[in-house]
Amino acid sequence: MNKKKQSTVLGIDPGYGRCGFGIIKGQGNDWECVTHGCITTESNSYFPDRLSEIYTDLSSLIEQHQIHLIAIEEIFFSKSTTTALKVAQARGVIQLLAAQKNIPVIEVKPNEVKVALTGYGHADKKQMEEMIKTVFHLKEVPKPDDAADALAVAWTGATRMRILQ
Amino acid sequence: MNKKKQSTVLGIDPGYGRCGFGIIKGQGNDWECVTHGCITTESNSYFPDRLSEIYTDLSSLIEQHQIHLIAIEEIFFSKSTTTALKVAQARGVIQLLAAQKNIPVIEVKPNEVKVALTGYGHADKKQMEEMIKTVFHLKEVPKPDDAADALAVAWTGATRMRILQ
Repeated sequence: MNKKKQSTVLGIDPGYGRCGFGIIKGQGNDWECVTHGCITTESNSYFPDRLSEIYTDLSSLIEQHQIHLIAIEEIFFSKSTTTALKVAQARGVIQLLAAQKNIPVIEVKPNEVKVALTGYGHADKKQMEEMIKTVFHLKEVPKPDDAADALAVAWTGATRMRILQ
Repeated sequence: MNKKKQSTVLGIDPGYGRCGFGIIKGQGNDWECVTHGCITTESNSYFPDRLSEIYTDLSSLIEQHQIHLIAIEEIFFSKSTTTALKVAQARGVIQLLAAQKNIPVIEVKPNEVKVALTGYGHADKKQMEEMIKTVFHLKEVPKPDDAADALAVAWTGATRMRILQ
């Protein structure tokens, strides 16, 4: 594989209490998981400070890895409006960070993530987990769920990148 | 008046296309308008860059003035959900900035703003404009509307400050 053509994608499952992240590196259909995890903030903390924690932690991650693309999951309204608005505030912070670091950011819909991984927009959690293991050559499903979701979002970003190239 | 006890409040009428701001300085019931205006971003610009513009412009304002409190209007859902979510993203950026600058930020509801200025939660635009002129000793109603709204939000922040003191 021509390592020079490799790209690094940061996928984010956005949230203010739990913000999943997954960094993948590769090209074409060959991608590996570099790191993944979940930024958590205390529920009793002052909300602007929680946003600042997410900004600082993601900023460090971006500085450690040369990120070519950030993919972030769009909000959907299955939860309460209050929650959706708070998640939107966290998403604003992430998009700001991307702009400040001059990294393109794309938004992906939950069903686009399912299609990118399984070819099926209504795939269930088990099918998604199996495909995450398969595409990244992993023995175990990444934990916690937020991190696995973020890796799936990163894969979707990589898929769009591949389509555009 | 003891100038040492004066506080400076930045009021914000948040938005991603038009973001009104108003800075007031004073104490007790005696407040003056320091500056006001509206940050505008191009509707055909890349959304994360629009957030970044708002962040940069507000950051400059905060550096120019010693701000003790930021008051920001809460979102209400009279507009579309898409608009509300985008405004929430801009609000996230503003709250982040406040946290990074270590300035307390409070959220005020539209009817709280009306009560703070007129004593009446259903005041109309004309009544609000008259009171903005009165409380800040202005000859004209500040323009554009976003700036006048932001000054009203700042007054509401100052009112809460006064209640707490």
